[in-house]
Order: sequence, then C-alpha cells, then structure tokens
Amino acid sequence: MRVYNFENDTSLSTDELYMKEALRLAQRAFEEDEVPIGAIIVSQGKIIGKGYNLTERLNDVTAHAEMQAFTAASNFIGGKYLKDCTLYVTIEPCVMCAGASYWTQISRIVYGAKDEKRGFTKFNQQIIHPKTEIIGGVMEEDCATLIKSFFRNKR
Amino acid sequence: MRVYNFENDTSLSTDELYMKEALRLAQRAFEEDEVPIGAIIVSQGKIIGKGYNLTERLNDVTAHAEMQAFTAASNFIGGKYLKDCTLYVTIEPCVMCAGASYWTQISRIVYGAKDEKRGFTKFNQQIIHPKTEIIGGVMEEDCATLIKSFFRNKR
Repeated sequence: MRVYNFENDTSLSTDELYMKEALRLAQRAFEEDEVPIGAIIVSQGKIIGKGYNLTERLNDVTAHAEMQAFTAASNFIGGKYLKDCTLYVTIEPCVMCAGASYWTQISRIVYGAKDEKRGFTKFNQQIIHPKTEIIGGVMEEDCATLIKSFFRNKR
Repeated sequence: MRVYNFENDTSLSTDELYMKEALRLAQRAFEEDEVPIGAIIVSQGKIIGKGYNLTERLNDVTAHAEMQAFTAASNFIGGKYLKDCTLYVTIEPCVMCAGASYWTQISRIVYGAKDEKRGFTKFNQQIIHPKTEIIGGVMEEDCATLIKSFFRNKR
C-alpha cells in the first residue's frame, strides 16, 4: 500500500522536500510492517543520516527512526554533536528521541504530524536543547495519513 | 584510580549488591575516560543486560549505559518489553533514558545518585511508564563520588 503519492510534487519548499525524503523512509517502514516513521539529518544541503523505525525487526524499543538517524549522522561526521544540522522526522519526536536530540545539540528539528500521546511538546519544552529551533506541521497531512493507515490496518 | 572499594562489603541489601555491579561498570567507564555511569538489568535474580557509558568511544550521544543495557536485555530475552525487570543505574536516568524506559515498560528503576541537571525527575514524572516503580538513593554516596571524581579530574 502506498499512502503518499511521491510523483505529485509541484512546488515544494526545502523543508517539504526533505520531509518527503523522511516520508519515503516512513513508507519503507510501513512496507516492513513497522510503525511508519522516517527521519533524516541534513547538514549544509546534504543528507548525512537516515533512519526508519525498526523496533519490531530489532526487538528493541530504542530503535526509533530518529535514534538511528542521530547515530548514522554522528558516524558520518565522526563527532558527537550535530550543531549545524536539521532533523526531519515525519512524526513529532517522543521523549526519548527529544532527550537524545538535546545531547546532540542539533540546530533544528522539523517534524510533520504531532504525536498527542508521547510527543515531547506535551511534556516539557526544556527537554529540548535551548539552541534547538523547532518547526512542526511540515507536510503534516501526509505524515499523519501514513501512520493512521498503519494503525487502521492493525485493528 | 579506584574510587569505590569493592572488597569492603559486609551486609548489603539485594539492591545494593546489584548497584555494586552497576558501580563496577561505571568504574570501567571511568578507566576508559568515559563519563562513569554503569547500568545493569536484572530479571528473576539474573543479570540479563549490562552497559556503561560509551559516548566518547562510539562518538554517539545515544550510547548511554542504560540504552545499552536495555538493548542487551532485549536481545537476551528476544522481546522488546522488560516487564518483570529492574534497571540498576549509578546515576539518575536522563530524559532520553527515562523515555526509553517508558517504551520497555520496565517494572522497577533503582538509581544511585541524582542528576540535578538532566535527571528525569526534574522534568515530568509522566516521562516514566505508570507501571514503573522508582527507587533513588541506593549507594548514593559511592555513585556520586565516582562521577564527581571524574569531573574533578577534568577541570
């Protein structure tokens, strides 16, 4: 099942173009029967880390898309800090991933749809590093649709 | 440098005995010039996961002691949930690790010394799964001494 039509892009903003890449990864998770969330890390116009949720395949609750993207980007850079980077993630980060983002000191977080249950904004803004700018709602509908379809199929 | 005298145990409680194991791992981190925090996961009297902080060696801010212990325990069990397990960790978990513990649905968290800056209790109790019991202050002084010595040496 293909929820998002990747062929139908006309005039997307830069954030939307990168979110589309995150959505592609979320779609891959969907096809592997994982909760469909995708993430990429961008530095100076280059994707330096990618991840999609693999909690089922790896039997590991820490294997969220963002965690894998953080680790991949750190490996790529050869350093722990992602100071001039942006995280694009299809769903608002959970407390764990937001807490991880704090340690990376990442510059920007752009997410698609909100997570009303475990999204970090529900908790405490201080979870996020004070230097991190947050932008929500990029391609929100597409991001939300993919995850809603997944859970609809499960019920 | 050996901060904690492991030979000097007389009548430790079960929690203290396990905390001592976590302290051993923290000591190993200390010797490798990593922020000295150690963690173990115990299930039915058996250590099923271990970890110590490896953020420097792995160049990865997500490589906290607890995260590695969670992953190791999940691998051991072959399942994502740590429902009848206890996490012993020398320092109060940060937001990321507390957020991870939520997903594991772990039964108990026992920590040694508080982390006033990024310890989860500073933020929001709901970060922790409602089924998780929290016990702080086990071998608090030993746990605190090790980490203080580390940072004292750095300055």
